[in-house]
Amino acid sequence: MNNFFDKLHEECGIVGIYSKTYQHLGPLIYDALISLQHRGQESAGIAVYHEGVMMHYKNMGLVRDVFNEENLRPFNGNVGIGHCRYSTIGSAERRNAQPLVVEFKAGTMALAHNGNLINAVQIRGELIDEGFSFTSTSDSEIIIKLIAIHYKGNPLEAIKKALAQVEGGYALVLIVEGKLYGIRDPYGLRPLVLGQTKKGDYILASETVALDLLEATFIRDVDKGEIIEIDDSGYHSHYFDTTKPMNLCGFEFVYFSRPDSDLAGKNVYQVRVELGKILARGDKEKYDLVAAVPESGVPAAIGYAIESDTVYSSVFIKNKYIGRTFTDPTQEGRERMLRLKLSILKSNIQGKRIVIVDDSIVRGTTLRSIIFELKKAGAKEVHVRISSPPVGFSCFFGIDTPSKKSLIAANMSVEEIEEYIGADSLRFLTSDEFVEGVGLPEDSLCKACFSGEYPMKVPKTHNKYVFEKY
Amino acid sequence: MNNFFDKLHEECGIVGIYSKTYQHLGPLIYDALISLQHRGQESAGIAVYHEGVMMHYKNMGLVRDVFNEENLRPFNGNVGIGHCRYSTIGSAERRNAQPLVVEFKAGTMALAHNGNLINAVQIRGELIDEGFSFTSTSDSEIIIKLIAIHYKGNPLEAIKKALAQVEGGYALVLIVEGKLYGIRDPYGLRPLVLGQTKKGDYILASETVALDLLEATFIRDVDKGEIIEIDDSGYHSHYFDTTKPMNLCGFEFVYFSRPDSDLAGKNVYQVRVELGKILARGDKEKYDLVAAVPESGVPAAIGYAIESDTVYSSVFIKNKYIGRTFTDPTQEGRERMLRLKLSILKSNIQGKRIVIVDDSIVRGTTLRSIIFELKKAGAKEVHVRISSPPVGFSCFFGIDTPSKKSLIAANMSVEEIEEYIGADSLRFLTSDEFVEGVGLPEDSLCKACFSGEYPMKVPKTHNKYVFEKY
Amino acid sequence: MNNFFDKLHEECGIVGIYSKTYQHLGPLIYDALISLQHRGQESAGIAVYHEGVMMHYKNMGLVRDVFNEENLRPFNGNVGIGHCRYSTIGSAERRNAQPLVVEFKAGTMALAHNGNLINAVQIRGELIDEGFSFTSTSDSEIIIKLIAIHYKGNPLEAIKKALAQVEGGYALVLIVEGKLYGIRDPYGLRPLVLGQTKKGDYILASETVALDLLEATFIRDVDKGEIIEIDDSGYHSHYFDTTKPMNLCGFEFVYFSRPDSDLAGKNVYQVRVELGKILARGDKEKYDLVAAVPESGVPAAIGYAIESDTVYSSVFIKNKYIGRTFTDPTQEGRERMLRLKLSILKSNIQGKRIVIVDDSIVRGTTLRSIIFELKKAGAKEVHVRISSPPVGFSCFFGIDTPSKKSLIAANMSVEEIEEYIGADSLRFLTSDEFVEGVGLPEDSLCKACFSGEYPMKVPKTHNKYVFEKY
Amino acid sequence: MNNFFDKLHEECGIVGIYSKTYQHLGPLIYDALISLQHRGQESAGIAVYHEGVMMHYKNMGLVRDVFNEENLRPFNGNVGIGHCRYSTIGSAERRNAQPLVVEFKAGTMALAHNGNLINAVQIRGELIDEGFSFTSTSDSEIIIKLIAIHYKGNPLEAIKKALAQVEGGYALVLIVEGKLYGIRDPYGLRPLVLGQTKKGDYILASETVALDLLEATFIRDVDKGEIIEIDDSGYHSHYFDTTKPMNLCGFEFVYFSRPDSDLAGKNVYQVRVELGKILARGDKEKYDLVAAVPESGVPAAIGYAIESDTVYSSVFIKNKYIGRTFTDPTQEGRERMLRLKLSILKSNIQGKRIVIVDDSIVRGTTLRSIIFELKKAGAKEVHVRISSPPVGFSCFFGIDTPSKKSLIAANMSVEEIEEYIGADSLRFLTSDEFVEGVGLPEDSLCKACFSGEYPMKVPKTHNKYVFEKY
Repeated sequence: MNNFFDKLHEECGIVGIYSKTYQHLGPLIYDALISLQHRGQESAGIAVYHEGVMMHYKNMGLVRDVFNEENLRPFNGNVGIGHCRYSTIGSAERRNAQPLVVEFKAGTMALAHNGNLINAVQIRGELIDEGFSFTSTSDSEIIIKLIAIHYKGNPLEAIKKALAQVEGGYALVLIVEGKLYGIRDPYGLRPLVLGQTKKGDYILASETVALDLLEATFIRDVDKGEIIEIDDSGYHSHYFDTTKPMNLCGFEFVYFSRPDSDLAGKNVYQVRVELGKILARGDKEKYDLVAAVPESGVPAAIGYAIESDTVYSSVFIKNKYIGRTFTDPTQEGRERMLRLKLSILKSNIQGKRIVIVDDSIVRGTTLRSIIFELKKAGAKEVHVRISSPPVGFSCFFGIDTPSKKSLIAANMSVEEIEEYIGADSLRFLTSDEFVEGVGLPEDSLCKACFSGEYPMKVPKTHNKYVFEKY
Repeated sequence: MNNFFDKLHEECGIVGIYSKTYQHLGPLIYDALISLQHRGQESAGIAVYHEGVMMHYKNMGLVRDVFNEENLRPFNGNVGIGHCRYSTIGSAERRNAQPLVVEFKAGTMALAHNGNLINAVQIRGELIDEGFSFTSTSDSEIIIKLIAIHYKGNPLEAIKKALAQVEGGYALVLIVEGKLYGIRDPYGLRPLVLGQTKKGDYILASETVALDLLEATFIRDVDKGEIIEIDDSGYHSHYFDTTKPMNLCGFEFVYFSRPDSDLAGKNVYQVRVELGKILARGDKEKYDLVAAVPESGVPAAIGYAIESDTVYSSVFIKNKYIGRTFTDPTQEGRERMLRLKLSILKSNIQGKRIVIVDDSIVRGTTLRSIIFELKKAGAKEVHVRISSPPVGFSCFFGIDTPSKKSLIAANMSVEEIEEYIGADSLRFLTSDEFVEGVGLPEDSLCKACFSGEYPMKVPKTHNKYVFEKY
Repeated sequence: MNNFFDKLHEECGIVGIYSKTYQHLGPLIYDALISLQHRGQESAGIAVYHEGVMMHYKNMGLVRDVFNEENLRPFNGNVGIGHCRYSTIGSAERRNAQPLVVEFKAGTMALAHNGNLINAVQIRGELIDEGFSFTSTSDSEIIIKLIAIHYKGNPLEAIKKALAQVEGGYALVLIVEGKLYGIRDPYGLRPLVLGQTKKGDYILASETVALDLLEATFIRDVDKGEIIEIDDSGYHSHYFDTTKPMNLCGFEFVYFSRPDSDLAGKNVYQVRVELGKILARGDKEKYDLVAAVPESGVPAAIGYAIESDTVYSSVFIKNKYIGRTFTDPTQEGRERMLRLKLSILKSNIQGKRIVIVDDSIVRGTTLRSIIFELKKAGAKEVHVRISSPPVGFSCFFGIDTPSKKSLIAANMSVEEIEEYIGADSLRFLTSDEFVEGVGLPEDSLCKACFSGEYPMKVPKTHNKYVFEKY
Repeated sequence: MNNFFDKLHEECGIVGIYSKTYQHLGPLIYDALISLQHRGQESAGIAVYHEGVMMHYKNMGLVRDVFNEENLRPFNGNVGIGHCRYSTIGSAERRNAQPLVVEFKAGTMALAHNGNLINAVQIRGELIDEGFSFTSTSDSEIIIKLIAIHYKGNPLEAIKKALAQVEGGYALVLIVEGKLYGIRDPYGLRPLVLGQTKKGDYILASETVALDLLEATFIRDVDKGEIIEIDDSGYHSHYFDTTKPMNLCGFEFVYFSRPDSDLAGKNVYQVRVELGKILARGDKEKYDLVAAVPESGVPAAIGYAIESDTVYSSVFIKNKYIGRTFTDPTQEGRERMLRLKLSILKSNIQGKRIVIVDDSIVRGTTLRSIIFELKKAGAKEVHVRISSPPVGFSCFFGIDTPSKKSLIAANMSVEEIEEYIGADSLRFLTSDEFVEGVGLPEDSLCKACFSGEYPMKVPKTHNKYVFEKY
């Protein structure tokens, strides 16, 4: 559905569990991954460790398809990590699925990684020059190799030395020598939270929804530049870089995170409702009804309805039974798919002036088809409101943005987009409005995909298949 | 999901297409079935006919799993029918999937059936006494056998004679001698509509959504007791029984039909919004917010919000990535499933007095768990509003109702239900309010599941496995 | 492999088990079907009965693919039947898989059928005229419908009346009213044996190998025109037609039956060795070595080697790992398949004059390719000996023979075949030699496929899709 | 089947193709792997290279299950390798499937490996100490890492330096910088042959059967200690170690190689017939018949029959339709499996004194069951003749031998084995007889599994999971 609705893609969801006791960790990690599945649907994997033995399994597919009661059965231990992935670097092959598991000086180590290294090509080149060889095309293999190289008996030191070499946005969970590590990059670009279950087990996860699911209490966000080390004595904080300002990805609030997650102390749903309210404040005119492009536009549409005192209404009915077959690249084929996936409540919009709220526009193609269908179904006017600023710049820190030439806002003005999609009016949030809605200090958010101002120097070109083009 | 959310089940969706020209009908029927998939998810089948040759295929599973580009390829012809099924009579076995295809005097005939015969046991017994043998346990086999028996060269006569013997609620599409037939029982209990595509092909379908998907224009509902016969000269109306009053299933408006369908001239979404408004009018008190149990409660919750000027808000986040594994019948297991499937937006309900709108209550078990979780998550008060009257009686006409002892409203008063589910208050619609909301004459609706007043005499006991208990 | 090696096909294998005690019959029937799998590889099915309840399952595929530990688990009861099928009448669709199970006056009945009715078209037409309708295209449905029609409280009488109407070659196992029936047609064309396990359970099976596998003792062949009825009091013999002479299918000895089966008191392997010895007696010349076309030619080749005192040698190595993909209908493609499936031991045949023994020739295409490859690999002379007479006539009694125009011996003299396949010499057995080798009275064998003299009047044309051509 | 028949296991089959022209190499490598499938059935993989791009795919399963027309389609290029594997080092996981593909200084390199390194643990430890980390548990990863480490612009030099470090028995095919390399260890323990197709493409393969299948002409065996380098200018020979004596694995003649392969100039089938003849010469007594344990005993049994002028007969019928389910570790369960897989031709052995020829005895358990069944079926005497010496020692060079305590000949004298298996007499070949039969100079064969005299110093213990026990 994501592809169809023309959205940006989060790279991955990660989770780690540390318990003092040997137990059947498999189902717990499975549940947590199910709750993080929206962050990556291409592959899934679990690694569980106990007393020197690392069990792991990963494959292409959804968590529910990769794992089942039978193949989870042997996942017993006291520490484990899980990963679900949408590829940003490296193509969608099984060898790029995670967790990565390697044998090195201190036995077996496992890594799950959300994010993206911007100096991966350079480090990889250096390692290859030194005689190292790589079996995957994912940049995560660089991190694990660096840790193995720097390891001299102390995992924390090895991790710190490895992280000193890499640049980019990342959240990591790692099992080394039976300890669990949770790490966020020096800018805090990708999220990672820490919690604890009633039994005392520690949980690290990309989002708080995983804590809720495991009935764990939220302790705190892992901090930027921080390594959380967990062993039988509890969790310990170590900082490897405190020189950088916080730059939490703003798009987590726009689209990636689940609405029931809390991020940097803010509930994502509430932020989205607020963004919708701010959108409404910008509109002087009143419309007949406001509707969301499902599902991502719902909270902002509700916010808009409240603030503008407009009737909130369903306009689209999603068919959840759509299969994957019969995709047809012609215009007729795409219209058929839209009708199959998203049927329009004609009786609701006949002769009406309606506001459609969506969270963002990437290519604009789907929105264009939607507006075409709405008008065909009888809508008098279609006004589009987007609860974020225009996305005009590629992300280098773990979000799969298309190349600039595909980003509609990189190539058209708002007026041109309005005309292209056929809207009677189109408004985005300004950057300031967006920051206001999120409610965090402006300089603690990464808004590079809106502004082009990156928190660190980025490569001129960006290509997720970079390691396959040798 | 349906099972989980403790709903009644529609038996089937049916579709028929008649064209003057030989064409690749498979994908058209496939698309129509996808749009009717909510009416039955256990099996799917397609039969296509051309010049004496009937091609058919059916299997257990969703339409998208049963069919693919390859196995649809041979479905070429000028007339075809399709069926998706949730079993009401006969267990979920492949031999009970439809369309039923038999060879008889005039070649090959195909039937797809939505509904239920109440005198099936008796007719079946009579046929068996005459030496007939049955290969399925579905009551549809009775209809097709009767048609074969009565056939003497004129299909319409044979159909009329067969229908004269059966009693119950049904909608049928039939291919006999290359003609397409669409039939509704004498009470019009189950819906069936007629439409026409731009190319002039005729479509028969359980709901208008299938017409929309095929870009067909709605012509009219097939009438109660009417046989629509379609051939190259167009469509022709024949009545086989005009002695009975219309008794369209009221629950189609409550839950079964898709909101974007029109039924007896009423748009289902609008009816549901109206039912929600009527619910609101019954409440003098104001609450902090109103939310729907997704998805079925959404329109009525929106109606409630509009009428009562209460904030409409999301309270539940559904996880669409849930698999089928690891169901655990313990209380702990059920709570885990609820958390996996339906996560609660805690920040939205802290200390709040909330109204939850659902379309109906069958067993009450899920609602009870939901209210428990809402309170655990911080809701101060949970008030439940149901946009239909209490369901206290079994359906005999094509709806899979549990036995009376499982229907909570058959065994408890509203006050007892309120206490059982843990609601701070509970209100249903009265029968009069429900009729008002639907907007059709009271005596044209079947409300037997609410009132116990059946349009015809029904058997004392009812059992979907009746033909397997010999 | 069979298709590749251009053989005739047996229609089916059948098995029945009757026990006085309720037990887990599924695995026993499974094992028996595995031992009869050579008789039919297209579909498999099992039905098990106990106290009024019939459990059954069937699907397309090999026994090992259709059944597994899980789906066999519910097959508990005291009487059961099994079936594996290669279609002779009716195409390879699931609805034609067996056992057939129907509900009729006395509850549920199950039938498994090996053979072919020659008056099926006529009876089917009569039944259809009477108003019956058919859901499969197999002629077995006729038998079961007739039994249901004739049933008036006594299953044996109903069976006798049904059998009085049908003509052809057949062996049947039937479960009616909890009793097991084993039946052979009045000519005994298709085989059926009776045995008993150590525990006292009775077994009916197409071949004695199934008895061996279940460690059952052979009691006797079911006789032509006999109905064996088995219940708690033991087995009882009833004759329904004693007017016809025995006409056991001679091709069972040539190819169909497993060599470790005994048929009419003769061990099949010994018969085949004997046929090879007789072949050798006809050769005055001595050759350098004798080899078999694997596997069917092995026993006769061994017999030839013994009688002629020629070195028996392997010349072909079969590759058992061949898949089904990449079939290529070109001549180059067929030669590649032959190399993949059957590699030639070049070092064994360099400059040698060799005898190749096969059991029969149907189309001759494979043998032609084999001889071409042998010569290319260095054989000086290739002499072909066939351990049966030329097959020049279609079978109407349960064997899938191609149409006469595809039978090489129906269209060419032995000399022409010799030239066509490229053999340096070619010899078949004469009909007399064949009868001598089998060792049964000449007039007790059906040799119609060799002679065209059918035991009963047969239809002029024969088509396995006859019921699909309406 | 192999497991059941209690045989030693070859590790792998490998193949390489080099063409001057870009072509659809996938199906050619597929065919070659099908012909080498007997050397390894756990996993299969293909890598194809063209102008800097390496395409590869591998998975668990048979070649025919891993590959299909669709996933072979992209395998176009001018050089490719393939691999089928039975694990000797490293467990049966996907990460251990081959070819191994890594990116290193000069781009992408691919390796397929048959054999075993005896100093793998030591080298791996050294590399890990230097900071390298390993993602598989196969010893092949060591070789490819060493090549990457030693690469300084000249692949041949890097390969030579890598090989200078490893010890053991191996045959390798490698793609580096677009060239194809074929390598045999300094003792020539594992086989590798070179051939050329009519079109001029070069083929490297474990056995000549792969050449035959691709219609390639045999050029010569790759020599011990030799690197064959193939590029557009043809093939070039380089020696990296000429100090060791030839020690071709004797067991390739006994069991591993296909009978239609030639090895060191000897045809394997002819060698096996000769071994059978030598066995016969040792028997003064005459028996009633001689039979083979299928399939591996067939050539030696034929040789025995010829030399002793005894009747060669089939005694076992293998059922090729056996599935994998329902294995039952009880004695009863094993007997059932034996009956399912191998039925006995009772009529052939009644009251007879028979000779059973097999190629080797590993654990003796199957032979014991076979003899038990033969006697139960009526054999008067069962004399066992084995066409190789007793296997009393583990192999360290690529053969999966069980631990010494499971090798029956390591724990019992021939008399004790005779008694254990229940034979009336038992004879093995002596080492001298075996060498005579093979027909190669005694000191050019490795007979370590018979004699314990290893061509190089071997580790005290041996464990295929050695790298998973960290």
